[in-house]
Amino acid sequence: MSKINYGNYFENFSIGQKIVHPLPRTVSEGDVSLYIAFTGSRFSLHSSDIVAREIGYKKRPIDDILMFHLTFGKSVQDISLNAIANLGYAEISFPNPVFVGDTVSMTSTVIGLKENSNGKSGVVYVHSIGVNQDGNEVLNFKRWVMVHKKDHSVKSEINIVPTFEASTPIVDKINIPTIGAIDTDASGGEYFFEDYVAGERLNHPEGITIDKSDHTLATKLYQNNAKVHFNDHMMKSTPMGQRLMYGGIVISMARAISFNGLQNAQWVYAINSGNHCNPTYAGDTIYAYTEILETIDHKREDIGLLRLRTIAVKNQNPTEISSPKGEDGKYLPNIVLDLDYTVVIPKKSTKK
Amino acid sequence: MSKINYGNYFENFSIGQKIVHPLPRTVSEGDVSLYIAFTGSRFSLHSSDIVAREIGYKKRPIDDILMFHLTFGKSVQDISLNAIANLGYAEISFPNPVFVGDTVSMTSTVIGLKENSNGKSGVVYVHSIGVNQDGNEVLNFKRWVMVHKKDHSVKSEINIVPTFEASTPIVDKINIPTIGAIDTDASGGEYFFEDYVAGERLNHPEGITIDKSDHTLATKLYQNNAKVHFNDHMMKSTPMGQRLMYGGIVISMARAISFNGLQNAQWVYAINSGNHCNPTYAGDTIYAYTEILETIDHKREDIGLLRLRTIAVKNQNPTEISSPKGEDGKYLPNIVLDLDYTVVIPKKSTKK
Amino acid sequence: MSKINYGNYFENFSIGQKIVHPLPRTVSEGDVSLYIAFTGSRFSLHSSDIVAREIGYKKRPIDDILMFHLTFGKSVQDISLNAIANLGYAEISFPNPVFVGDTVSMTSTVIGLKENSNGKSGVVYVHSIGVNQDGNEVLNFKRWVMVHKKDHSVKSEINIVPTFEASTPIVDKINIPTIGAIDTDASGGEYFFEDYVAGERLNHPEGITIDKSDHTLATKLYQNNAKVHFNDHMMKSTPMGQRLMYGGIVISMARAISFNGLQNAQWVYAINSGNHCNPTYAGDTIYAYTEILETIDHKREDIGLLRLRTIAVKNQNPTEISSPKGEDGKYLPNIVLDLDYTVVIPKKSTKK
Repeated sequence: MSKINYGNYFENFSIGQKIVHPLPRTVSEGDVSLYIAFTGSRFSLHSSDIVAREIGYKKRPIDDILMFHLTFGKSVQDISLNAIANLGYAEISFPNPVFVGDTVSMTSTVIGLKENSNGKSGVVYVHSIGVNQDGNEVLNFKRWVMVHKKDHSVKSEINIVPTFEASTPIVDKINIPTIGAIDTDASGGEYFFEDYVAGERLNHPEGITIDKSDHTLATKLYQNNAKVHFNDHMMKSTPMGQRLMYGGIVISMARAISFNGLQNAQWVYAINSGNHCNPTYAGDTIYAYTEILETIDHKREDIGLLRLRTIAVKNQNPTEISSPKGEDGKYLPNIVLDLDYTVVIPKKSTKK
Repeated sequence: MSKINYGNYFENFSIGQKIVHPLPRTVSEGDVSLYIAFTGSRFSLHSSDIVAREIGYKKRPIDDILMFHLTFGKSVQDISLNAIANLGYAEISFPNPVFVGDTVSMTSTVIGLKENSNGKSGVVYVHSIGVNQDGNEVLNFKRWVMVHKKDHSVKSEINIVPTFEASTPIVDKINIPTIGAIDTDASGGEYFFEDYVAGERLNHPEGITIDKSDHTLATKLYQNNAKVHFNDHMMKSTPMGQRLMYGGIVISMARAISFNGLQNAQWVYAINSGNHCNPTYAGDTIYAYTEILETIDHKREDIGLLRLRTIAVKNQNPTEISSPKGEDGKYLPNIVLDLDYTVVIPKKSTKK
Repeated sequence: MSKINYGNYFENFSIGQKIVHPLPRTVSEGDVSLYIAFTGSRFSLHSSDIVAREIGYKKRPIDDILMFHLTFGKSVQDISLNAIANLGYAEISFPNPVFVGDTVSMTSTVIGLKENSNGKSGVVYVHSIGVNQDGNEVLNFKRWVMVHKKDHSVKSEINIVPTFEASTPIVDKINIPTIGAIDTDASGGEYFFEDYVAGERLNHPEGITIDKSDHTLATKLYQNNAKVHFNDHMMKSTPMGQRLMYGGIVISMARAISFNGLQNAQWVYAINSGNHCNPTYAGDTIYAYTEILETIDHKREDIGLLRLRTIAVKNQNPTEISSPKGEDGKYLPNIVLDLDYTVVIPKKSTKK
């Protein structure tokens, strides 16, 4: 057997199989600074220990999306190295905060397998759980990817497809401390849960251009080793002709850009679903707008939730876009992300 | 009222108005490493805890210019997001050192307003003070920017213009510990206060090229959100045709390059004035030379001060330049920074 | 005498001369994160404090090659700033681990001098020793560089050439803790010392493209100030026409890429010799393959050593290359590194 790990093919997966992903990662101050350098993120909870303590934390937690990348990146080698396409993800939740010094790792269980009728590939469904050094869950999600088969001659005709919730369930116990105080001078935003209404749209004014080194440095930091993001020599001979940007970069940029209008919505509670509608490459400028899909009351008195749809657009100002899809029901060519997610935002009573 | 913060227009400012800038920032080891990666800075005080302790600190303080960027960046959203031009700054001082773990924040007071005769814009003068978590001043400066008016039909004819000192006053109490010892093997330089004379010129040999990701990563790290630095899509339709480099990047490069010849001048006491004479873009190579304007005695016996003029030049070796201005009194096209500042440098008696 | 340090010329060196290199460096978490961002390195020992503690460390040590760069970079100003060529290095060893918070510095002793017959240059041989804040050796190596003479009219005819071991001697006491346990789920590799055989070849599948900002940010982080790596304006008028990538970048990439196949070989014991066969520039994609030259038993029962030859290739898949040299005995044009080094790898008995 070769010592080289070429990743798994469709035949290598079986229902119930548990995969411990290598490379636990101790989160450092360097990761946090790099994330700000990559995104320009301005959420005060992740920027200042003083703000974090006023809210009720011992110190600033790391950005939820940074934690997602650092944890998720570990699964690429085992799950999606031979992926034809990342088809989707569901029920992503962020059960506990992560701090500098914590060590995160991830395990996946195969929950579905569906061979494609062409016999050349199949869809693998996994349930992945990231934990910290104490075993507390910090990330929980399901994803499905289309993976090559190694041997096209043998057909298994396996067809076990799990079902997913349309949105991540909202639980009673949310692991955010009882909000001490929100200092709007620090957060930069005056708006709280009660100020948002379903149907409202926020056109975030910033557009940020991503260059070659930006996106490859970030993806390497996450130890995500999917070749399409790093190997320009290989990609030159593909129809893309260049390195594809890791889709997570666009999620990060959209989230950072959404700050302007959602300054106090500093926690990602869940990602309900996401669609990387079109590829992004170095040199693209990312813009975003957000629709408030739903305002969600919670039994806690200090916070509420907003279900959001953030649309990321490349090289076009979002004010020019009324709907991400054209009359044919397909995404417009400049739409690069359609993200359905839920954030936590304090209520007015928490204002300092 | 829109939840989007579009920044302030001339009409939004009033004399005496106090603006607390959002986003206090806890300084981290990641910020320090990134600053070295951006600049290649070699001042030993900021590189080594051992050097810092020999000098008299508990540990290495962060580079003064890094502190400036991390603190200053916060004011862009409120003061200069709608600026037509950053006209100048004065009396910049660095009253106390900043260390990793400190949290810096900034407040500005409007001290002058002058409507332009065209009725379309005006000049806003602010006095900005940055403090650490204990309320100690770490940055103090005045700046003035030309800002758009929102409504061109109403004229205020306001004309209150403050006056500034030609240079930041030198105070008796300088918050640098009594110099324990300067190890010239560590600092890399043999020259002390007594070795420099007014009129002397130092042609620093290094030239450093800045690329796209370098300058945008730095500016995002500083959470400076001025669009001109990030949005290539927008800038393509301007006369510049591309993203403008944040002027602070050039200050940082000039300071880092000035190391060779000023190795023991490890503290920026003040910036007296600065002129970003021409724009810089990705791909430009920054060089610098320094004139010793003045040697300044201080009542402290261990240190003196040097008033310096560092000229940064793009894409041309400074040895080819005798004066930054041509016969017409205008800056030559390759001159990108004319910085008048004051540094502290130990006296010979401190040599280890 | 000029205050500008232009580096040393051949005449400035003398046998037995001791040079304390400036700029001790305190290693930070930021350096570690940046190194992962530059290389995508996935060795678990350097990624996770939990893994490091299971092995027997108090916390994760920094990557040996990162330590090399941070320490080595300091010597450029004194030794090789006026180098015509970096000719070679020998007997590189890594005697003790380095951790975040440690401060490394370096001293070199001149051990050889050979004037070239043309009278214009000479070869300088130095023995360099890097230490931490407690004076413990962390790096020990010999290197030789061809350096310009300042005055071509005076000839010294000095010709003192030291001899070097063909490979770094293997000592009895290796400063790696007795291996507690190797968790292959964490390291990502199932193979131990006993699994490797001399003559075996590993074609590492990853190829990673290096861009402009990647390599210049790294080299500046290492405070390596060799002009050829930074100054595009100057390099445009040379035959290269652009900035040359620091050879250490290629060593780092080759080492990081070699992970896939050598997952448990987490310690670089020594670099026996290295040849930067051809230059690399921004945009090049680096691949690598490794030959097992020798399996080396050690008196310790928990570990063995592998002597490896890793060949880095640019812009070509290593599977296409059978030998790095052509029939004429010269390196093929795409071969960029021929590295002979020795790694430590635990034995099967250590498997968790």
